[in-house]
Amino acid sequence: MREVAIVGIGQTPVEEHWDISLRELAAKAVLNAMDDAGAEDVDALYVGNMLSGILTNQENLGALIAECVGLSGIEAVKIEAACGSAAAAFRQAVLGVASGMIDSAVAVGVEKLTEMSGRATTHGLATASDGDYEMAIGLSFVAINALLMRRYMHEYGWEKNDFAPFVINAHRNAAHNPNAMFQNQINQEQYNLAKVVADPINLLDSSPIGDGAAAVLVVPAEDADKYDGQVITVAACEIGTDTIALDNREDPLWLKGVERSTAKAFRTAGVRHQDIDLFEVHDAFSIITALSLEACGFAEKGQALRMANDESIGLKGKLPLTTMGGLKGRGHPVGATGLYQIVEAATQLRGDAPDALQIDAPNCVMAQNIGGSGANVITSILKRRD
Amino acid sequence: MREVAIVGIGQTPVEEHWDISLRELAAKAVLNAMDDAGAEDVDALYVGNMLSGILTNQENLGALIAECVGLSGIEAVKIEAACGSAAAAFRQAVLGVASGMIDSAVAVGVEKLTEMSGRATTHGLATASDGDYEMAIGLSFVAINALLMRRYMHEYGWEKNDFAPFVINAHRNAAHNPNAMFQNQINQEQYNLAKVVADPINLLDSSPIGDGAAAVLVVPAEDADKYDGQVITVAACEIGTDTIALDNREDPLWLKGVERSTAKAFRTAGVRHQDIDLFEVHDAFSIITALSLEACGFAEKGQALRMANDESIGLKGKLPLTTMGGLKGRGHPVGATGLYQIVEAATQLRGDAPDALQIDAPNCVMAQNIGGSGANVITSILKRRD
Repeated sequence: MREVAIVGIGQTPVEEHWDISLRELAAKAVLNAMDDAGAEDVDALYVGNMLSGILTNQENLGALIAECVGLSGIEAVKIEAACGSAAAAFRQAVLGVASGMIDSAVAVGVEKLTEMSGRATTHGLATASDGDYEMAIGLSFVAINALLMRRYMHEYGWEKNDFAPFVINAHRNAAHNPNAMFQNQINQEQYNLAKVVADPINLLDSSPIGDGAAAVLVVPAEDADKYDGQVITVAACEIGTDTIALDNREDPLWLKGVERSTAKAFRTAGVRHQDIDLFEVHDAFSIITALSLEACGFAEKGQALRMANDESIGLKGKLPLTTMGGLKGRGHPVGATGLYQIVEAATQLRGDAPDALQIDAPNCVMAQNIGGSGANVITSILKRRD
Repeated sequence: MREVAIVGIGQTPVEEHWDISLRELAAKAVLNAMDDAGAEDVDALYVGNMLSGILTNQENLGALIAECVGLSGIEAVKIEAACGSAAAAFRQAVLGVASGMIDSAVAVGVEKLTEMSGRATTHGLATASDGDYEMAIGLSFVAINALLMRRYMHEYGWEKNDFAPFVINAHRNAAHNPNAMFQNQINQEQYNLAKVVADPINLLDSSPIGDGAAAVLVVPAEDADKYDGQVITVAACEIGTDTIALDNREDPLWLKGVERSTAKAFRTAGVRHQDIDLFEVHDAFSIITALSLEACGFAEKGQALRMANDESIGLKGKLPLTTMGGLKGRGHPVGATGLYQIVEAATQLRGDAPDALQIDAPNCVMAQNIGGSGANVITSILKRRD
């Protein structure tokens, strides 16, 4: 198989994009990525998206977006894996280029969540849970995560406010990211006073929905120098899954999909935990940050909150997390999020992050995108090319 | 890249499956395909589906179905390209195995369309059209195809009943396919009297919606002999696209996506028109059969209806069409259809079709699955292994 490289990246700010349509939003990110690479065309387009059918009455986004960027005719499909859709689209682009059957591919994640009522969006997001066994009994997606958080606190004796440092860290970084939805810092007191959404999850534990699109252009590593963009090597992009319904898991506090996906990615990339210079974790809810760190092997079971301090997760810490604000601060346009993470990881490797956010010369970074409460997990490991 | 082979096939009958859920329906086809190959596990699962989010409140089908077949943990995603979703999932499975990163993959197409009201289903199907420029002005998907059919009759001087032989042929074959939804033959008089759905399209021009699932197991050709199933070579599986909205096309009567997809597939497989022993055409509406034959190069522009006779399209004709009943007779569970076509094509190559339907020793067969009115076209060419 061929080694694969990222030669172009693009994104739109995450916000409420009421002035442009879904296709135009995606097109902006695709054209930014192609422009970054100096590419005029590509062989294939993989669109990550979760809710365009339910919220925008539009399927077949592949053909739609290909036309909108002036590339009607090329291979183009949509990939869906709930909130993991964008990184799953990235995985397909990598497979296509690795196979030798495609010589260049754009993966774009796009989502518009703010045009419909909150109720419609909440309904849409619940389709990431098990429709027959969770949604049917009235559990919203937040409620499912609230059950996890409550159980975690009960099992390991943590207090609610022990989760705050993850959120404070994310907002502190988002404040310097011009593409982030929230550019305000928060403190412990604000966290303590935040309105409860689904007890014990409060508003600041929850990543905000938003509209946005992010894209990368991937090519065979051997062709990468033909493009303008600074080259990033895709050392691994691997998928692991788990049951969707929590009650089908042996231990709901152990994300097997995360464990599997991480193990595969580490094996493919030939790296160990200590090699990872920063981690774009899927902080959809602060409980998911904690559970991910544990199932990835960065923390002992039940002990991830011990890492919730600046020496561990801050920009100068041992394992910087959510360096551009994460889902919490940058925003979580669900089917686009995985590619925001990959674009941000690539930006850090290039040394192109805003000064206040740039990690000191990272060599190897990890991004993990999750669909459902750990049901579909895509782990990407990117490296700076020597 | 590695050559890819099909070693297992599975399907459920197309009908109104009110007694089992979406996941169980898909699981039946997956397990049938694995059983056919004698495989106990696979590396990856690609699910083709269009409307599970809108009609069944369920996304993330990859993880859901992987669990349901006892393979929770494996790589699994959903691929969507409207009515072309299943063959697009097959394409991803082929890319994955060709890349060397995946050693075995099941592609399954699944759809349940009959549980909701006809109105909900009509709304869902319309998301295959352009939401902003077609659906928004009230065009249903049938109405879009009716515009095409009317224009074709006007432009080339054909009468409505000239389309009948395509439909009669499909039903004649479906009558012998135990998995077909309609097992009744029809005649010209019935066609002439059929109720109009969207003038000039009548009920017998339209393929019926239905529930169903079909699956194949693909592996590297070099490993194929380790499996039980009779081996079929995947000579090509290629995607071409076009605009979704008809008004954006230079000539609405010329399906550029079909032309592109077919040309790519012929090039990849190294075959010409005369090499194709049978063609599973995407006969969603009889006008689409005609336009496809022309854009594929099997008929001159405006002249496909000249082929609509037994010497051309019958089981002993020059280019047998819809040999198991096609979308019209077997039924059209939209996101599953492409894999029904591939399973049927493989069945013919194996010599395992019902006696009344078996083509005499075919060597090279073609299946074409279309999403939208020609917006996303996936052409597969399968060969018997020598």
